[in-house]
Amino acid sequence: MTNIMQAEHLKEAIQWRKLIDVLLDANQYADIVLKGGYVINTITREIYEADVAIKGEYILMVGDASELIGKRTTVEDVNGKFISPGFIDSHMHFESAMLTCTEFSRLSIPTGTTTLVGDPHEIGNVLGVHGMQEMIKEAKTLPNQIYFTVPAAVPDAPGLETAGFDVNSKHMEELLNDTYVQGIGEIQSFSNIGPVYENAPELIDDLVAAVSYANSIGKTVEGNAPGLFGKELAAHIISGGTHVSCHETTTKEEMMEKLRYGVSVFMREGSSQRNMAECIRAITEEGMDSRRAILVSDDMVPEDLLKDGHMNDLIRRTIAQGLDPVEAIQMATINPATHFGFKDVGILAPGKRANIAIIDDLNQMTIDQVYLNGKLAAEKGELKINLGTYTYPESVKKSMKRGPVKLEDLQIHAKGSKAKVRSIVAIPDQNLTGAKEFSLNVKNGVVQPCLKQDVLPILVVERHGRTGNIGKAFLHGFQLQHGAIAESVAHDTHNIIVTGTNYEDMVTAVNRVIAMDGGIAMIRDGKVVGDLPLRVGGLITDELSGNEVSEKITELTRLAKDELGCSLHVPFMHLSFWSLVTSPEWKITDMGLIDVDKFEVLPPVIE
Amino acid sequence: MTNIMQAEHLKEAIQWRKLIDVLLDANQYADIVLKGGYVINTITREIYEADVAIKGEYILMVGDASELIGKRTTVEDVNGKFISPGFIDSHMHFESAMLTCTEFSRLSIPTGTTTLVGDPHEIGNVLGVHGMQEMIKEAKTLPNQIYFTVPAAVPDAPGLETAGFDVNSKHMEELLNDTYVQGIGEIQSFSNIGPVYENAPELIDDLVAAVSYANSIGKTVEGNAPGLFGKELAAHIISGGTHVSCHETTTKEEMMEKLRYGVSVFMREGSSQRNMAECIRAITEEGMDSRRAILVSDDMVPEDLLKDGHMNDLIRRTIAQGLDPVEAIQMATINPATHFGFKDVGILAPGKRANIAIIDDLNQMTIDQVYLNGKLAAEKGELKINLGTYTYPESVKKSMKRGPVKLEDLQIHAKGSKAKVRSIVAIPDQNLTGAKEFSLNVKNGVVQPCLKQDVLPILVVERHGRTGNIGKAFLHGFQLQHGAIAESVAHDTHNIIVTGTNYEDMVTAVNRVIAMDGGIAMIRDGKVVGDLPLRVGGLITDELSGNEVSEKITELTRLAKDELGCSLHVPFMHLSFWSLVTSPEWKITDMGLIDVDKFEVLPPVIE
Repeated sequence: MTNIMQAEHLKEAIQWRKLIDVLLDANQYADIVLKGGYVINTITREIYEADVAIKGEYILMVGDASELIGKRTTVEDVNGKFISPGFIDSHMHFESAMLTCTEFSRLSIPTGTTTLVGDPHEIGNVLGVHGMQEMIKEAKTLPNQIYFTVPAAVPDAPGLETAGFDVNSKHMEELLNDTYVQGIGEIQSFSNIGPVYENAPELIDDLVAAVSYANSIGKTVEGNAPGLFGKELAAHIISGGTHVSCHETTTKEEMMEKLRYGVSVFMREGSSQRNMAECIRAITEEGMDSRRAILVSDDMVPEDLLKDGHMNDLIRRTIAQGLDPVEAIQMATINPATHFGFKDVGILAPGKRANIAIIDDLNQMTIDQVYLNGKLAAEKGELKINLGTYTYPESVKKSMKRGPVKLEDLQIHAKGSKAKVRSIVAIPDQNLTGAKEFSLNVKNGVVQPCLKQDVLPILVVERHGRTGNIGKAFLHGFQLQHGAIAESVAHDTHNIIVTGTNYEDMVTAVNRVIAMDGGIAMIRDGKVVGDLPLRVGGLITDELSGNEVSEKITELTRLAKDELGCSLHVPFMHLSFWSLVTSPEWKITDMGLIDVDKFEVLPPVIE
Repeated sequence: MTNIMQAEHLKEAIQWRKLIDVLLDANQYADIVLKGGYVINTITREIYEADVAIKGEYILMVGDASELIGKRTTVEDVNGKFISPGFIDSHMHFESAMLTCTEFSRLSIPTGTTTLVGDPHEIGNVLGVHGMQEMIKEAKTLPNQIYFTVPAAVPDAPGLETAGFDVNSKHMEELLNDTYVQGIGEIQSFSNIGPVYENAPELIDDLVAAVSYANSIGKTVEGNAPGLFGKELAAHIISGGTHVSCHETTTKEEMMEKLRYGVSVFMREGSSQRNMAECIRAITEEGMDSRRAILVSDDMVPEDLLKDGHMNDLIRRTIAQGLDPVEAIQMATINPATHFGFKDVGILAPGKRANIAIIDDLNQMTIDQVYLNGKLAAEKGELKINLGTYTYPESVKKSMKRGPVKLEDLQIHAKGSKAKVRSIVAIPDQNLTGAKEFSLNVKNGVVQPCLKQDVLPILVVERHGRTGNIGKAFLHGFQLQHGAIAESVAHDTHNIIVTGTNYEDMVTAVNRVIAMDGGIAMIRDGKVVGDLPLRVGGLITDELSGNEVSEKITELTRLAKDELGCSLHVPFMHLSFWSLVTSPEWKITDMGLIDVDKFEVLPPVIE
């Protein structure tokens, strides 16, 4: 237990004592009473008329609060509106929005989200424990509740990729003993059950050690079990200490199996992958008890936050699938609070933190007001508190630890005039890929990109100053017509990934990313078509607001289409996932082309 | 965190790793497979056919386990039977059964109960931390899961009664840092909200300190909020740290209010008080979500355990109220497991402890087999494992710290020939009492018992060697015709309580209790009509089995009726509650007659 924990408990105790006085001393009163609204009870699954009385940071009581209204009490008329506990996003990555915690919060608080469980494994892959701790440090400056679930293993697949730092069970003590750290995050290192068990069983030993340590100090563990059933699902659940979640559940059958196995299913419904409509069928069609069904965003881009909202939008879409609104709200309040053991949120009840969303229209989930710690934090979409801005220290901004690349570094060589090559096959809107062989021309010993077959070189350039590796392969289906795109966002180790129609532009793109201290660069004919510096670990900007990042991404997407001829939806987000070696089939890392199921590095050119 | 905790986590980690091997290595198999049964899924609220595979102490998986059956696997045919997680009794007192943990377990394991949450506050009142730790020590010798919730305040009402030891926030560190201690038990010291707030606010400060300390080390806190609503209920909930239970809920309206306030309602359905039928109406009639409805026994006598069973009987009776059987089973499995944060029980799923009840008839809740930690522990009501017997050390058996009383010690004096006296009014089958004044004859300065009005002296003799106090009052409605009854079971401080038709027999009865090192004694005309020695703290016998205690109590009840003419149901149990000063109206302690609501000691004779 840390000293911070102690201080927080002492502060809480003092405030509890004060609340008791206000309740029982006839001369003391509430600070705020929300009057005339309909309370959403997430325990009993009811809606009824009741006042909500607030003192300091906490809810005093819910019911008839007339005796708690004194001269100085602010009585807030919420007539006809619905009063809900603030929403919880149980699994999200700030890095996916490319935003600081502050800028993400600026967008999410007005939508009613008051608790975020962030997983900093992206910055962890780049900057290790230090990077994650810097992010946690930022979260501590904010008034919304932010907890973190930290990785137990970085990189996901040791031996197949190079991260900036390695994290394993040895780091758990340092990482987990922080009040803001909820536990271990998605245990991806054992998602790919069969191959890991066959090829790297020592990873399982280390994982179980980390998990067991986490449990022993009262911390939780999140799973990650895409497509697992039966014995494999059982093994994954046990490796996580038996009380785990999964946010990679995509079918009704998987949902049913996982709920039956006791998994908290984090139904993902974010910017890139949307699984709720399929998962929810286990409840709407099969009538399963929904206590372990939970809504999460996983990855959100600022544009969607601005346009549609956050958890309120996920709830809205769940209601649209035919679920009772209160049951849907349970999935973003009491269900996750219970899963994590958060005792102060998820329900409007005495002594709970006064984190509240006032809803205008229950089916549309339009948010009128948001209270954070008993204070009005947002109204009609406008933030009413000053979050400031947060600037990260230079120690996390100088993460591009390599010099510029040269043409010969990137070229893929072969003998003769034709080469048979191995190519990753892009599948639109999926992290999964296919695998295919193509025949390409060779000029002066260099394999040439082929626009006709849509087969381009794809490379990953190690940028953590550890090996200098450059992994090489080919990519089919990216639809690029001109130039090159490079970026330092490349899951999960975040080396520089690059593809292009010609090697020269690829060199310029990679070097542009390095020169910016990380980010996204699009090059055509040697010129910068568009770029976005992401100086915090090469993943996040602390220089732009959520609005500005959103505009920038819209602009980059347009430029990718207009200037580079690539009409995939947000092409640089697609590109960033083709290095993720925890999902099949072929991927690319700094070590080369990876056959994910075989745990094998394959040469790009077939001799 | 204690060293014990560390060792347990290490052991668990090693076993988890082994389970993963069995699941993924095609040459390893389950120890036991339960085949052909219907699994009760407490998460999804379903029943379906599935195998349950067990390895060592844990469940490997639930589903098609054919691949896990090897040559040495025991395949248990449970065709047509129902497979449920073992049952949890979330609030019980071993002292109420007058049995050691071992003897209670001997009766409860065959009924399917595999987890007990004991509250040792009775022995705590007599012997303080040492007494409770001796009971915890016994529990550690047993194979069923036993946890304890320990009192934060002993006595319940300082200044109004004398316990053997005082327990307060200072003792929390010593008590709570034990893996077998789940947290703080029923916080009775703040049940009686108004009077405590008015008269002893320092108790609230101490309670909140204890609660806050418990929370800071991850321990839970149980409430006790009989008849509380609105602001008072809110204050009680907050004093317990906001995540509390209440096992004293007696009406549908109270049930609804408490569930709405986020309280886990422990619907009590034990030997003495039965509240489930009323409470359950909030669910059966109002359709409230039942996730925080939990079944508990509180007080069970061995006779009922033997005749009707334990949690299986509570579930049976709940089903009889019209509840779906699986929902009723949730109330004794996953609901309490979730309330307490038990992650290893309450559900049949991979890696969970193999504590299992096999049910023959779902509506009758007849138990066929019980598995504890993966081993067959009971079959058709017969225990199949050797529990041994447990003998307590002499340090907890010499708890009668006073010499014999004399006639003049017990007599109640008054001037003149008539005295107006204050009398507790017995209410059959209730801990609550009434208050009434009577006029009694006085002979030689001594107030005489009056059989005609059914008004007898009732006294509490301090026996902890601290003050020697003798509290005196009168009792109406006990229906005693001859002799006297004394006992060292007298809630909650467990001094000697005595009543009788004449002072002489009362003296003999008290002295008999002292001579036995505690227990129950019934005297008529100077002779022992019946007795039961309870040498462990004056509360429990470690010399008799559950069967023997049951027979003894039946015999004593018969003798009370036949020899002493008292036809109340189990009269000595009634007697033991008239010293409980946490429920109204008038009670008796070693300090005298107590007006519970006024926090005041009243003289027995009105001058």
